[in-house]
Amino acid sequence: MNDLAPLASLSPSAFRSLCRDGRYTGPTAGVAPGRVQANLMIVPRDVAFDFLLFCQRNPKPCPLVEVLEPGRTEPSIAPGADVRTDVPGYRVWTDGALTAEVDDVRAWWRDDLVSFFIGCSFSFEAALIEAGIPLRHVEQGINVAMYRSAIACRPAGRFHGPMVVSMRPIRAADVPLAVETSARFPHVHGSPIHVGDPSALGIADLSRPDYGDPVAIEAGELPVFWACGVTPQAVAQAARLPFCITHAPGKMFVADTSTHAPADRVV
Amino acid sequence: MNDLAPLASLSPSAFRSLCRDGRYTGPTAGVAPGRVQANLMIVPRDVAFDFLLFCQRNPKPCPLVEVLEPGRTEPSIAPGADVRTDVPGYRVWTDGALTAEVDDVRAWWRDDLVSFFIGCSFSFEAALIEAGIPLRHVEQGINVAMYRSAIACRPAGRFHGPMVVSMRPIRAADVPLAVETSARFPHVHGSPIHVGDPSALGIADLSRPDYGDPVAIEAGELPVFWACGVTPQAVAQAARLPFCITHAPGKMFVADTSTHAPADRVV
Repeated sequence: MNDLAPLASLSPSAFRSLCRDGRYTGPTAGVAPGRVQANLMIVPRDVAFDFLLFCQRNPKPCPLVEVLEPGRTEPSIAPGADVRTDVPGYRVWTDGALTAEVDDVRAWWRDDLVSFFIGCSFSFEAALIEAGIPLRHVEQGINVAMYRSAIACRPAGRFHGPMVVSMRPIRAADVPLAVETSARFPHVHGSPIHVGDPSALGIADLSRPDYGDPVAIEAGELPVFWACGVTPQAVAQAARLPFCITHAPGKMFVADTSTHAPADRVV
Repeated sequence: MNDLAPLASLSPSAFRSLCRDGRYTGPTAGVAPGRVQANLMIVPRDVAFDFLLFCQRNPKPCPLVEVLEPGRTEPSIAPGADVRTDVPGYRVWTDGALTAEVDDVRAWWRDDLVSFFIGCSFSFEAALIEAGIPLRHVEQGINVAMYRSAIACRPAGRFHGPMVVSMRPIRAADVPLAVETSARFPHVHGSPIHVGDPSALGIADLSRPDYGDPVAIEAGELPVFWACGVTPQAVAQAARLPFCITHAPGKMFVADTSTHAPADRVV
């Protein structure tokens, strides 16, 4: 689906219904502008403290929007939602390897599973666009480009691994405005972590992203990198986590909450 | 000790040494201006996930500065420090009741204990004073006044209870500046939660604080209330927690970290 205009006009709950019924399985950039979108990481209770600590120590890639008690499926950021069905795409991981890619995870659900909702940079894209900063992946209706970087996250318990970053080409003159604008949204990654030099992040070839779709960088633009909520997936791989469920990259949980809610009152 | 001037000139590590040797057991308002001060909550591993979740859900009273793995005693915000000895005063709690008040907790230490460092509003007091806002409890060398409010924290697992608030009298004309200035420090409680009406918080008599020392409110001043890191102690009582160790109210862990470090890079 390349034309997201109809999706942009749906309410978050109407969009989640589409996902629940299996009628939309695509990326969520451009969906419900101005609402918080969240990456998903679902882990068993016995590693939940370690993962919560990992998020606390790595707030740029893993800014927590909400965490549910074990077995709970309805977050307060989206009353009536079900975390097991309302995301356009999920990934199931076993021993750090991807073992299923599905649009419903009720068959994998267990009462000891803890759901983490991690802020997504899609949430501030509406603000960038309003500020006059065009976003090529939104214009083209494709997924944002994401890369496994050489930056190591701060470890916590059994969790360790590389930081994943998202990249948006930004006109050089717009870079300060892009930094200022995104910095106002710390609970959805906030300001970029790097501007301009992919090799400094260990990224050899921007045209070959590890997740999502490649996007061209035009003359006069710089690649700008934000910490990305796909980081837990790279970490689950690196740490050979016995079991977890995540969203599929670019396919987020769309919440009711406004991105303009202060970070400490987001829920 | 009413004259804190000599303490204000000590480095954080020199101040911690004084505490470690039992030579200072007083409050820490005014100590090491511009450095992060932290409330302490130490709980067994089996309730650590619930408490970490409680902090995530209540970032105004419980903004996390650092959390250590079970058994660890040296935080990265203060290399060389020992959480068991470097605070001027500790409280030991059993089944929700205060059972000891000491200046060294090595006798109570266990390898399953998890230490939480929670930002303290003392950290932004230097910025308030620099902005031209006098703080009476600092001038008088007494402890800040703290109250158990009628505001319920968001519960998490077995943790629930009232929010504790600190109060500072502020000249009415200075209130906006006090809000703006403290808002720049979200990892140490940030902006106030209330201005002006103690009864709205369920506080019947400002002259009788639940923790710390009373302070006069002069003509032309308003009582301004910030969320307070003593909240975990009220919560430990309300939840009848089997065991925990906290700092004594007003007697903080003084870290090396600058309060001016961005919230997401505080460690």
